[in-house]
Amino acid sequence: MTDLSTRMLDLGRRARTAAVLLREAPAAARTRALEILSAKLTAAEPALIAANARDVEAAREGGMTEALIDRLSLSPARIAGMAEAVATIAAVPDPLGVETERWTPANGLDIARVRTPIGVLGVIYESRPNVTADAAALCIRSGNAAILRCGSDCLQSSLAIAALIAEALAEAGLPADAVQLVDTPDREAVGLMLTGLNGAIDVIVPRGGKSLVARVQAEARTAVLSHLEGLNHTYLHQAADLETARAIVLNAKMRRVSVCGATETLLVDRAAAQRLLPPVAADLIAAGCELRGDADARAIVPVMTPATEADWITEYLAPILAVRVVDDLDAATDHIARYGSGHTEAIVTTDAHAAERFAAKVDSAIVLINASTQFADGGEFGFGGEIGISTNRLHARGPVGAEQLTTYKYVVRGQGQIRP
Amino acid sequence: MTDLSTRMLDLGRRARTAAVLLREAPAAARTRALEILSAKLTAAEPALIAANARDVEAAREGGMTEALIDRLSLSPARIAGMAEAVATIAAVPDPLGVETERWTPANGLDIARVRTPIGVLGVIYESRPNVTADAAALCIRSGNAAILRCGSDCLQSSLAIAALIAEALAEAGLPADAVQLVDTPDREAVGLMLTGLNGAIDVIVPRGGKSLVARVQAEARTAVLSHLEGLNHTYLHQAADLETARAIVLNAKMRRVSVCGATETLLVDRAAAQRLLPPVAADLIAAGCELRGDADARAIVPVMTPATEADWITEYLAPILAVRVVDDLDAATDHIARYGSGHTEAIVTTDAHAAERFAAKVDSAIVLINASTQFADGGEFGFGGEIGISTNRLHARGPVGAEQLTTYKYVVRGQGQIRP
Repeated sequence: MTDLSTRMLDLGRRARTAAVLLREAPAAARTRALEILSAKLTAAEPALIAANARDVEAAREGGMTEALIDRLSLSPARIAGMAEAVATIAAVPDPLGVETERWTPANGLDIARVRTPIGVLGVIYESRPNVTADAAALCIRSGNAAILRCGSDCLQSSLAIAALIAEALAEAGLPADAVQLVDTPDREAVGLMLTGLNGAIDVIVPRGGKSLVARVQAEARTAVLSHLEGLNHTYLHQAADLETARAIVLNAKMRRVSVCGATETLLVDRAAAQRLLPPVAADLIAAGCELRGDADARAIVPVMTPATEADWITEYLAPILAVRVVDDLDAATDHIARYGSGHTEAIVTTDAHAAERFAAKVDSAIVLINASTQFADGGEFGFGGEIGISTNRLHARGPVGAEQLTTYKYVVRGQGQIRP
Repeated sequence: MTDLSTRMLDLGRRARTAAVLLREAPAAARTRALEILSAKLTAAEPALIAANARDVEAAREGGMTEALIDRLSLSPARIAGMAEAVATIAAVPDPLGVETERWTPANGLDIARVRTPIGVLGVIYESRPNVTADAAALCIRSGNAAILRCGSDCLQSSLAIAALIAEALAEAGLPADAVQLVDTPDREAVGLMLTGLNGAIDVIVPRGGKSLVARVQAEARTAVLSHLEGLNHTYLHQAADLETARAIVLNAKMRRVSVCGATETLLVDRAAAQRLLPPVAADLIAAGCELRGDADARAIVPVMTPATEADWITEYLAPILAVRVVDDLDAATDHIARYGSGHTEAIVTTDAHAAERFAAKVDSAIVLINASTQFADGGEFGFGGEIGISTNRLHARGPVGAEQLTTYKYVVRGQGQIRP
């Protein structure tokens, strides 16, 4: 056994021990830890900036692109954002101990289904230091112990944040081991986490790009909560209101092109393409979006470049939009079923019957009627935050907030019943 | 690619196609299919008995033990039981389309969480022909397509049942491929199912002994819903009522010793051991149960054989009970946390405060207060049946009925909202 694997197994054991204490701790203590952490993040701004400067300097020396350096960098505004995110999660209703159902079957037993923590979560992410605080906060809110593994490029920043988390936990009377950061850049640590650390990790949440998620999905011997990609569609039904369509498509594609809720393909009903496509396309082009259309779309908006089969299955995460004219609602849902990733789809229409039929037929985690796909977000859903958006079909689907990081048990109250 | 793998991949594709049709079918059609199936099982009694006779004959020639032959055998009473089980599942409220939550966050969107089928389930079981009907019925009720793989010893019986299922589906206007039985005894088929058949299977449910479940847990590249074992405890608290304790312990251990809800270890508070243990032990011994006690238990009931460490971690599934005297409630929950399998535990006490503390501390799927652990059963929970009992911490925990075989999606209704 290598030195690293010994250390990682120890991390797992300590997480497991902490998870029991955390599970039995009152909601008020977990809320208090989050409030303290939020205040500490604000107060530690200079120290966090200094730690982050070391990461940024090393990254720059290593030749990292400016886009990635921006992702890695902490500013006073970003630190304030982290503190606010933690405070928001502190204010979310505590999910634990809630009875989600209670009933009495024929045998007279009083059966309650009660929310409890899952146990120990492993979170593997890239070089965004804020995820350290976000993920820790959601785990504390949901009563789960966490083992966090950040991208090696943000290790100094994350260590500084993790030190504040440990202090906040201790000051609230909770075990400091409830949130542990893997303190080495050694990449073997990821492989060890994926083994589950001898059963110590219940579920792994990868948070990052497609290659990270694909590796975790392929190799993890634990359960995984993840989405591989958000290949999302906005569908303009023939009864779409023009101004609503313009506003929604522009927002769904261009508000932020790099988020997993961004629309990647626009579907337009043939019967309304002549009416809707020119103004919608003009807005997008004016905003700097490249359009790739099928033959029917290009017949209406000739400035589009030709779309190929590859465009229907590409998550651009960039100012590019694939455009296809479809015969009707069924053709739209067929396209989505064939090419989509089951993440988020939207319909724009004034026809309530068509809207409900689309919502019933489309089998994605989130289906929106007359709203932007960029609402695919735990914060927008009122969850106070999210650790990601799941396209799993088991456990949590859609935004994963504190409540989705829980499981349940049955508490059955009898008066001496035995089974015949 | 072997001929078998080509056939299995085709099975997967057909299941996936059927799953879409099944998902879009109305609840009434699924109910009707179940009612028709129940009637067909009853009407086909002679044919089922004949098919089963071929299985039994082959098993006997192969030297199968009488206990296993009993498990494999269909009688008129067992066929009636199968038909009744399917009728019960037909009468369960349909889980699909139910809005489990609906709310409006600050952005004004109307968000609904709606139950939908998971998709395609793979069920791998042993030589109990009734599982073919049971599992199919739960899948139909929950709108999931199923690929069933029975033990090779019950293939003829299962094929006869599967033919009735296909007829019932077709007569109800549902795709016959919604439930497919792997029609070869080739053991390689199991390994192919565990690969997920190119993404066609969403989740595998192993239903059988520990070696089957362990293999599926180790090898499956899909999600798995399972329990490895039910190492369940009944704890007699110092404030236990004697008659309640006697009735519950006898029932929890001896009603049926081979079910996963049977109690395997009895814990007794030191303060009440002298009062409770002799009568409880006398009942068990009179019923033919072997007792294996720790030194303190044997000091009170000397007829017990000595328990070793191995007894605390053995799921006997036999008329044997491990007995341990504990100092108090905390010692009892510590024992359960250390040795238990997270399945089902019970406390017997007249002290409501102690009961609630036990229920809060014990982290098992089912915690009972003053009731027999043998109530760990989907039918007893009012689910109309179960495909098994899950000790997973993700997705379903405890009895898995039709509702637990669903996932959800969000349907979000807006009025043109875009994200700022």
